[in-house]
Amino acid sequence: MRNASAIRLVGFDGDDTLWKSEDYYRAAQDEFERMLATYVDLDDVYQRLYAVEKRNLALFGYGVKGMVLSMLEAAFEITDGAIGSDDMHRIVLLGKSLLQHPVEQLPGIRDAVAAIAADHAVVLITKGDLFHQEAKVRDSGLADLFPRIEIVSEKDASTYARVLDEFGLQPHQFAMVGNSLRSDIAPVVALGGWGVHMPYHVTWAHEEEAEPIADGARVRRVLTPAEIPAAIRALGPA
Amino acid sequence: MRNASAIRLVGFDGDDTLWKSEDYYRAAQDEFERMLATYVDLDDVYQRLYAVEKRNLALFGYGVKGMVLSMLEAAFEITDGAIGSDDMHRIVLLGKSLLQHPVEQLPGIRDAVAAIAADHAVVLITKGDLFHQEAKVRDSGLADLFPRIEIVSEKDASTYARVLDEFGLQPHQFAMVGNSLRSDIAPVVALGGWGVHMPYHVTWAHEEEAEPIADGARVRRVLTPAEIPAAIRALGPA
Repeated sequence: MRNASAIRLVGFDGDDTLWKSEDYYRAAQDEFERMLATYVDLDDVYQRLYAVEKRNLALFGYGVKGMVLSMLEAAFEITDGAIGSDDMHRIVLLGKSLLQHPVEQLPGIRDAVAAIAADHAVVLITKGDLFHQEAKVRDSGLADLFPRIEIVSEKDASTYARVLDEFGLQPHQFAMVGNSLRSDIAPVVALGGWGVHMPYHVTWAHEEEAEPIADGARVRRVLTPAEIPAAIRALGPA
Repeated sequence: MRNASAIRLVGFDGDDTLWKSEDYYRAAQDEFERMLATYVDLDDVYQRLYAVEKRNLALFGYGVKGMVLSMLEAAFEITDGAIGSDDMHRIVLLGKSLLQHPVEQLPGIRDAVAAIAADHAVVLITKGDLFHQEAKVRDSGLADLFPRIEIVSEKDASTYARVLDEFGLQPHQFAMVGNSLRSDIAPVVALGGWGVHMPYHVTWAHEEEAEPIADGARVRRVLTPAEIPAAIRALGPA
């Protein structure tokens, strides 16, 4: 417990840290590729879809609805207009089912958050679509552990600085737990905070385009939620 | 200035109160109706679209992206699948242009907000898509007047109660300025607050489905932004 007092606030990411998410996106993308395979014989359909998503990110932001709109645009472009409107409609329905999937906690995450909340203030910081993220928080069975929930449009250093400002804390008093080096760890470390990186078994291409971490000594890597409390205790100045 | 001291915080709605919005949605819906007229001869296309939007509201929330997905679903249903994928694609592009339209301040609104901000704390409370609303606030040229901006998924009594709680205020110390009786005025009055209703020249059908206002004496109606400061001064206990 040596340095536990140095960390005053622990932030948790939502998607793929508290609950499953990327698996559902992957399944939708697989379905998209199968659909397009009836029109075109290409082995880079996913890369073409991602290129459209990426170009639309500044207009749509993150989340299912933007992804579905990008899928529709990509489907039309990739098939050179040959796609049928029935398949366009199926893509819309695919998006609706993605918005309705149940929210599945990662095994052990509830105990880990509860253990940390016993000693620290905790906050859930999740990015994406406000409406869908609120629904996921509500359905997750974890909302009772988080007195404060921040749903943000982008997780960069300025967003984390604003959140810390609202809590009246300095970066060195803050640790963020999440699966994405790009969104959860790198910007917090760049500010002078701490990170606990818990990789998920699948990572969206966009989250993999990470800047190198400025100071690796400020980051612990864990493999399961059960390891998070000890990792938080191990953080902080020696 | 008799009762000005009773009101401590003035909230402003965004869409159709600070800047134009519904006009752009209407133009997109008109375009949708023209497109479908080449497939079907119906005079209730707009009502059918609204029925689809309304049924999807619990899944999509408010905003352009959800509206576009509902348009695609409605287009397929209304034409019984006859719509071409080229027109489905055009609907996606219509949505993208809607997300890129310039943000146009309502004439006189900047002066009105500045006059009120001289005597009261002010907050912008807007609902809809987080990403698009943040972009509109940024592009509006009004962000500097609002130290606090709340983007919420629904404007009901519980949302206003949460915002007032964050400000440490009682409802009778709060007045909300907006164009929608349903979203801006009725829930605030129901809590015991005050309202300044400034109707816009077009109102979305959903916003017109309003509960009757509990206490009309707590609401002033104005026709232009220039009238808002005097309406705020006239509010409060006699």
